[in-house]
Amino acid sequence: MLIRILHCHKVHPLSPRCFTSATLNVLMSGDVLRKTRVYTEEDVLQYSKVSCDSNPLHTDSAAAKDVGFEGPLVHGMLVASLFPHIISSHFPGAVYVSQSLNFKFPVYIGDQIIGEVQATNLRENKNRYFAKFKTRCVKNGDLLVIDGEAVALLPTLTVEQIQHEKR
Amino acid sequence: MLIRILHCHKVHPLSPRCFTSATLNVLMSGDVLRKTRVYTEEDVLQYSKVSCDSNPLHTDSAAAKDVGFEGPLVHGMLVASLFPHIISSHFPGAVYVSQSLNFKFPVYIGDQIIGEVQATNLRENKNRYFAKFKTRCVKNGDLLVIDGEAVALLPTLTVEQIQHEKR
Repeated sequence: MLIRILHCHKVHPLSPRCFTSATLNVLMSGDVLRKTRVYTEEDVLQYSKVSCDSNPLHTDSAAAKDVGFEGPLVHGMLVASLFPHIISSHFPGAVYVSQSLNFKFPVYIGDQIIGEVQATNLRENKNRYFAKFKTRCVKNGDLLVIDGEAVALLPTLTVEQIQHEKR
Repeated sequence: MLIRILHCHKVHPLSPRCFTSATLNVLMSGDVLRKTRVYTEEDVLQYSKVSCDSNPLHTDSAAAKDVGFEGPLVHGMLVASLFPHIISSHFPGAVYVSQSLNFKFPVYIGDQIIGEVQATNLRENKNRYFAKFKTRCVKNGDLLVIDGEAVALLPTLTVEQIQHEKR
Protein backbone atom coordinates (compact mmCIF):
# COMPACT_ATOMS: atom_id res chain seq x y z
CA MET A 1 0.00 0.00 0.00
CA LEU A 2 1.24 3.44 -0.90
CA ILE A 3 1.30 5.56 2.23
CA ARG A 4 0.29 9.13 1.48
CA ILE A 5 -0.79 12.00 3.67
CA LEU A 6 -3.52 14.18 2.23
CA HIS A 7 -5.77 16.46 4.24
CA CYS A 8 -5.29 14.39 7.37
CA HIS A 9 -6.23 15.45 10.84
CA LYS A 10 -5.44 13.86 14.19
CA VAL A 11 -3.23 11.22 12.62
CA HIS A 12 0.46 10.56 12.92
CA PRO A 13 2.88 11.28 10.09
CA LEU A 14 3.05 8.33 7.70
CA SER A 15 -0.51 7.31 8.58
CA PRO A 16 -2.73 6.32 5.64
CA ARG A 17 -4.32 9.33 3.92
CA CYS A 18 -7.78 10.21 5.12
CA PHE A 19 -10.50 12.46 3.74
CA THR A 20 -12.39 15.31 5.28
CA SER A 21 -15.25 17.27 3.81
CA ALA A 22 -12.69 19.54 2.17
CA THR A 23 -11.34 16.86 -0.11
CA LEU A 24 -12.46 15.19 -3.31
CA ASN A 25 -10.44 12.31 -4.58
CA VAL A 26 -10.46 8.72 -5.80
CA LEU A 27 -10.59 6.00 -3.14
CA MET A 28 -7.56 3.74 -2.97
CA SER A 29 -6.79 0.72 -0.85
CA GLY A 30 -5.48 1.93 2.50
CA ASP A 31 -7.51 5.15 2.52
CA VAL A 32 -9.41 6.09 5.66
CA LEU A 33 -12.75 7.89 6.01
CA ARG A 34 -13.73 9.21 9.43
CA LYS A 35 -16.63 10.78 11.27
CA THR A 36 -16.92 11.98 14.84
CA ARG A 37 -20.11 11.88 16.85
CA VAL A 38 -21.26 12.35 20.43
CA TYR A 39 -24.52 10.55 21.22
CA THR A 40 -27.12 12.29 23.36
CA GLU A 41 -29.88 10.98 25.60
CA GLU A 42 -32.33 12.10 22.90
CA ASP A 43 -30.47 10.01 20.29
CA VAL A 44 -30.79 6.94 22.51
CA LEU A 45 -34.49 7.64 23.09
CA GLN A 46 -35.19 8.10 19.38
CA TYR A 47 -33.22 4.97 18.45
CA SER A 48 -35.05 2.96 21.14
CA LYS A 49 -38.34 4.04 19.56
CA VAL A 50 -37.50 3.28 15.94
CA SER A 51 -35.74 -0.02 16.70
CA CYS A 52 -38.31 -0.99 19.40
CA ASP A 53 -35.28 -1.97 21.52
CA SER A 54 -36.30 -1.19 25.08
CA ASN A 55 -33.43 -2.94 26.86
CA PRO A 56 -33.26 -1.17 30.24
CA LEU A 57 -29.46 -0.95 29.95
CA HIS A 58 -30.04 1.94 27.54
CA THR A 59 -32.50 3.96 29.57
CA ASP A 60 -32.32 2.91 33.23
CA SER A 61 -29.21 4.09 35.04
CA ALA A 62 -29.79 1.73 37.98
CA ALA A 63 -30.16 -1.31 35.69
CA ALA A 64 -26.94 -0.38 33.87
CA LYS A 65 -25.03 0.14 37.13
CA ASP A 66 -26.32 -3.18 38.50
CA VAL A 67 -24.46 -4.90 35.65
CA GLY A 68 -21.29 -2.93 36.33
CA PHE A 69 -21.61 -0.12 33.78
CA GLU A 70 -21.12 3.55 34.63
CA GLY A 71 -24.52 4.53 33.29
CA PRO A 72 -26.95 3.90 30.42
CA LEU A 73 -25.35 2.54 27.27
CA VAL A 74 -25.75 3.84 23.76
CA HIS A 75 -27.07 0.96 21.64
CA GLY A 76 -24.15 -0.79 19.96
CA MET A 77 -26.07 -1.02 16.69
CA LEU A 78 -26.66 2.74 16.76
CA VAL A 79 -22.94 3.39 17.18
CA ALA A 80 -22.23 0.84 14.43
CA SER A 81 -24.56 2.73 12.10
CA LEU A 82 -21.68 5.20 11.78
CA PHE A 83 -20.07 2.79 9.30
CA PRO A 84 -22.79 2.80 6.61
CA HIS A 85 -23.28 6.50 7.34
CA ILE A 86 -19.62 7.25 6.60
CA ILE A 87 -19.61 5.08 3.48
CA SER A 88 -22.85 6.41 2.04
CA SER A 89 -21.92 10.01 2.86
CA HIS A 90 -18.90 9.71 0.61
CA PHE A 91 -20.49 7.30 -1.90
CA PRO A 92 -24.22 8.10 -2.22
CA GLY A 93 -26.00 5.08 -3.64
CA ALA A 94 -23.64 2.60 -1.97
CA VAL A 95 -25.29 -0.77 -1.27
CA TYR A 96 -24.29 -2.52 1.94
CA VAL A 97 -23.35 -6.18 1.48
CA SER A 98 -22.04 -7.29 4.87
CA GLN A 99 -20.85 -6.09 8.25
CA SER A 100 -19.21 -7.83 11.18
CA LEU A 101 -19.20 -6.16 14.60
CA ASN A 102 -17.35 -6.90 17.82
CA PHE A 103 -18.56 -4.76 20.71
CA LYS A 104 -15.52 -4.48 22.96
CA PHE A 105 -16.30 -1.69 25.40
CA PRO A 106 -19.43 0.25 26.36
CA VAL A 107 -20.31 3.59 24.78
CA TYR A 108 -21.97 6.07 27.14
CA ILE A 109 -23.99 9.18 26.40
CA GLY A 110 -21.50 12.02 25.94
CA ASP A 111 -18.54 9.88 24.84
CA GLN A 112 -16.78 11.28 21.80
CA ILE A 113 -16.84 8.51 19.18
CA ILE A 114 -14.66 8.48 16.10
CA GLY A 115 -15.94 6.05 13.49
CA GLU A 116 -13.44 5.03 10.87
CA VAL A 117 -13.56 2.88 7.74
CA GLN A 118 -10.36 1.91 5.94
CA ALA A 119 -10.50 0.51 2.43
CA THR A 120 -8.62 -2.80 2.28
CA ASN A 121 -9.71 -4.23 -1.05
CA LEU A 122 -11.33 -2.69 -4.13
CA ARG A 123 -12.57 -4.75 -7.07
CA GLU A 124 -14.43 -3.56 -10.16
CA ASN A 125 -17.54 -5.47 -11.14
CA LYS A 126 -19.72 -4.37 -14.07
CA ASN A 127 -18.95 -0.66 -13.68
CA ARG A 128 -19.45 -0.81 -9.92
CA TYR A 129 -16.94 -1.55 -7.18
CA PHE A 130 -16.89 -4.11 -4.39
CA ALA A 131 -15.11 -2.36 -1.54
CA LYS A 132 -13.96 -4.11 1.61
CA PHE A 133 -13.33 -1.95 4.68
CA LYS A 134 -11.87 -2.41 8.12
CA THR A 135 -14.35 -0.68 10.41
CA ARG A 136 -13.73 0.59 13.92
CA CYS A 137 -14.96 3.04 16.50
CA VAL A 138 -12.68 4.62 19.09
CA LYS A 139 -13.96 6.54 22.09
CA ASN A 140 -12.41 9.49 23.88
CA GLY A 141 -9.30 9.36 21.76
CA ASP A 142 -7.83 5.93 22.18
CA LEU A 143 -10.16 3.16 23.39
CA LEU A 144 -11.30 0.74 20.67
CA VAL A 145 -15.00 0.10 21.33
CA ILE A 146 -16.15 -1.59 18.10
CA ASP A 147 -14.22 -3.31 15.37
CA GLY A 148 -15.12 -5.44 12.38
CA GLU A 149 -15.29 -5.44 8.60
CA ALA A 150 -17.76 -4.23 6.00
CA VAL A 151 -18.29 -4.88 2.32
CA ALA A 152 -20.22 -2.40 0.18
CA LEU A 153 -20.99 -2.10 -3.51
CA LEU A 154 -20.00 1.43 -4.57
CA PRO A 155 -21.32 3.22 -7.68
CA THR A 156 -17.95 4.95 -8.14
CA LEU A 157 -14.59 5.26 -6.42
CA THR A 158 -14.76 9.05 -6.50
CA VAL A 159 -15.03 10.25 -2.92
CA GLU A 160 -17.82 12.80 -2.72
CA GLN A 161 -17.65 15.91 -0.58
CA ILE A 162 -20.08 15.89 2.30
CA GLN A 163 -22.42 18.80 1.65
CA HIS A 164 -24.74 18.64 4.61
CA GLU A 165 -23.45 17.54 7.96
CA LYS A 166 -26.04 17.78 10.68
CA ARG A 167 -23.83 16.68 13.57
CA MET B 1 -30.51 -31.31 20.05
CA LEU B 2 -33.81 -32.33 21.57
CA ILE B 3 -36.59 -31.29 19.22
CA ARG B 4 -39.63 -30.11 21.15
CA ILE B 5 -42.70 -28.20 20.15
CA LEU B 6 -43.98 -25.74 22.70
CA HIS B 7 -46.30 -22.84 21.96
CA CYS B 8 -45.15 -22.62 18.38
CA HIS B 9 -46.84 -20.66 15.66
CA LYS B 10 -46.28 -20.72 11.92
CA VAL B 11 -43.79 -23.56 12.13
CA HIS B 12 -43.90 -27.09 10.84
CA PRO B 13 -44.30 -30.07 13.16
CA LEU B 14 -40.90 -31.22 14.46
CA SER B 15 -39.46 -27.69 14.09
CA PRO B 16 -37.38 -26.46 17.04
CA ARG B 17 -39.57 -25.07 19.81
CA CYS B 18 -40.11 -21.34 19.71
CA PHE B 19 -41.50 -18.86 22.20
CA THR B 20 -44.28 -16.36 21.96
CA SER B 21 -45.36 -13.78 24.48
CA ALA B 22 -47.57 -16.41 26.10
CA THR B 23 -44.69 -18.58 27.22
CA LEU B 24 -42.15 -18.49 30.02
CA ASN B 25 -39.43 -21.06 29.97
CA VAL B 26 -35.71 -21.74 30.12
CA LEU B 27 -33.69 -21.22 26.95
CA MET B 28 -32.04 -24.31 25.51
CA SER B 29 -29.75 -24.81 22.56
CA GLY B 30 -31.87 -25.08 19.42
CA ASP B 31 -34.64 -22.82 20.71
CA VAL B 32 -35.95 -20.09 18.41
CA LEU B 33 -37.22 -16.61 19.29
CA ARG B 34 -39.10 -14.66 16.64
CA LYS B 35 -40.55 -11.24 15.95
CA THR B 36 -42.47 -9.94 12.96
CA ARG B 37 -42.31 -6.37 11.77
CA VAL B 38 -43.38 -4.30 8.78
CA TYR B 39 -41.31 -1.13 8.29
CA THR B 40 -43.06 2.08 7.32
CA GLU B 41 -41.87 5.19 5.49
CA GLU B 42 -41.93 6.96 8.86
CA ASP B 43 -39.63 4.29 10.38
CA VAL B 44 -37.12 4.87 7.56
CA LEU B 45 -37.35 8.63 8.03
CA GLN B 46 -36.84 8.41 11.80
CA TYR B 47 -33.95 5.98 11.43
CA SER B 48 -32.33 8.21 8.80
CA LYS B 49 -32.49 11.08 11.30
CA VAL B 50 -31.07 9.28 14.31
CA SER B 51 -28.35 7.46 12.35
CA CYS B 52 -27.63 10.52 10.14
CA ASP B 53 -27.64 8.05 7.22
CA SER B 54 -29.02 10.02 4.30
CA ASN B 55 -28.18 7.55 1.54
CA PRO B 56 -30.68 8.43 -1.22
CA LEU B 57 -31.42 4.72 -1.75
CA HIS B 58 -33.58 4.94 1.40
CA THR B 59 -35.58 8.02 0.55
CA ASP B 60 -35.42 8.67 -3.20
CA SER B 61 -37.46 6.27 -5.29
CA ALA B 62 -35.76 7.34 -8.53
CA ALA B 63 -32.27 6.83 -7.08
CA ALA B 64 -33.25 3.35 -5.85
CA LYS B 65 -34.79 2.39 -9.22
CA ASP B 66 -31.70 3.66 -11.05
CA VAL B 67 -29.70 0.98 -9.24
CA GLY B 68 -32.25 -1.71 -10.08
CA PHE B 69 -34.32 -1.77 -6.90
CA GLU B 70 -38.12 -1.68 -6.87
CA GLY B 71 -38.23 1.35 -4.59
CA PRO B 72 -36.59 2.90 -1.51
CA LEU B 73 -34.82 0.42 0.74
CA VAL B 74 -35.23 0.03 4.47
CA HIS B 75 -31.77 0.49 6.03
CA GLY B 76 -30.18 -2.93 6.51
CA MET B 77 -28.92 -1.94 9.94
CA LEU B 78 -32.46 -0.99 10.97
CA VAL B 79 -33.77 -4.40 9.92
CA ALA B 80 -30.81 -6.04 11.70
CA SER B 81 -31.75 -4.20 14.90
CA LEU B 82 -34.50 -6.81 15.16
CA PHE B 83 -31.88 -9.23 16.53
CA PRO B 84 -30.85 -7.30 19.67
CA HIS B 85 -34.50 -6.28 20.05
CA ILE B 86 -35.63 -9.92 20.11
CA ILE B 87 -32.85 -10.95 22.49
CA SER B 88 -33.29 -8.06 24.92
CA SER B 89 -37.08 -8.39 24.86
CA HIS B 90 -36.77 -11.90 26.22
CA PHE B 91 -33.64 -11.25 28.31
CA PRO B 92 -33.75 -7.67 29.64
CA GLY B 93 -30.25 -6.62 30.62
CA ALA B 94 -28.59 -8.71 27.89
CA VAL B 95 -25.27 -7.27 26.73
CA TYR B 96 -24.47 -7.56 23.03
CA VAL B 97 -20.98 -8.97 22.32
CA SER B 98 -20.88 -9.46 18.55
CA GLN B 99 -22.99 -9.62 15.41
CA SER B 100 -22.23 -10.62 11.84
CA LEU B 101 -24.60 -9.59 9.06
CA ASN B 102 -24.91 -10.63 5.43
CA PHE B 103 -27.41 -8.50 3.52
CA LYS B 104 -28.68 -10.83 0.81
CA PHE B 105 -31.78 -9.18 -0.61
CA PRO B 106 -33.37 -5.73 -0.31
CA VAL B 107 -36.08 -4.97 2.23
CA TYR B 108 -38.73 -2.51 1.04
CA ILE B 109 -41.25 -0.45 2.96
CA GLY B 110 -44.26 -2.68 3.58
CA ASP B 111 -42.43 -6.02 3.39
CA GLN B 112 -43.37 -8.36 6.22
CA ILE B 113 -40.11 -9.24 7.97
CA ILE B 114 -39.74 -12.14 10.38
CA GLY B 115 -36.63 -11.80 12.50
CA GLU B 116 -35.44 -14.99 14.14
CA VAL B 117 -32.65 -15.87 16.56
CA GLN B 118 -31.84 -19.51 17.27
CA ALA B 119 -29.67 -20.41 20.26
CA THR B 120 -26.77 -22.59 19.13
CA ASN B 121 -24.47 -22.54 22.14
CA LEU B 122 -25.00 -21.62 25.79
CA ARG B 123 -22.17 -21.38 28.31
CA GLU B 124 -22.33 -20.28 31.95
CA ASN B 125 -19.75 -17.74 33.07
CA LYS B 126 -19.82 -16.28 36.60
CA ASN B 127 -23.61 -16.53 37.01
CA ARG B 128 -24.20 -15.11 33.54
CA TYR B 129 -24.51 -16.89 30.20
CA PHE B 130 -22.69 -16.48 26.92
CA ALA B 131 -25.28 -17.28 24.29
CA LYS B 132 -24.50 -17.74 20.62
CA PHE B 133 -27.35 -17.37 18.14
CA LYS B 134 -27.92 -17.94 14.46
CA THR B 135 -29.71 -14.79 13.30
CA ARG B 136 -31.80 -14.37 10.20
CA CYS B 137 -34.56 -12.29 8.68
CA VAL B 138 -37.01 -13.65 6.14
CA LYS B 139 -39.33 -11.47 4.09
CA ASN B 140 -42.81 -12.21 2.82
CA GLY B 141 -42.69 -15.76 4.11
CA ASP B 142 -39.72 -17.39 2.49
CA LEU B 143 -36.96 -15.12 1.16
CA LEU B 144 -33.84 -14.96 3.34
CA VAL B 145 -32.80 -11.30 3.39
CA ILE B 146 -30.26 -11.18 6.24
CA ASP B 147 -28.30 -13.90 7.96
CA GLY B 148 -25.43 -14.02 10.41
CA GLU B 149 -24.58 -14.81 14.00
CA ALA B 150 -24.76 -12.98 17.31
CA VAL B 151 -23.23 -13.49 20.72
CA ALA B 152 -24.81 -11.92 23.81
CA LEU B 153 -24.16 -12.11 27.53
CA LEU B 154 -27.47 -12.98 29.20
CA PRO B 155 -28.29 -12.32 32.88
CA THR B 156 -30.36 -15.51 33.00
CA LEU B 157 -31.59 -18.30 30.72
CA THR B 158 -35.18 -17.76 31.82
CA VAL B 159 -37.10 -16.46 28.83
CA GLU B 160 -39.13 -13.47 29.91
CA GLN B 161 -42.64 -12.76 28.69
CA ILE B 162 -42.89 -9.70 26.49
CA GLN B 163 -45.15 -7.31 28.37
CA HIS B 164 -45.25 -4.35 26.03
CA GLU B 165 -45.29 -4.84 22.30
CA LYS B 166 -45.68 -1.60 20.42
CA ARG B 167 -45.69 -3.10 16.92
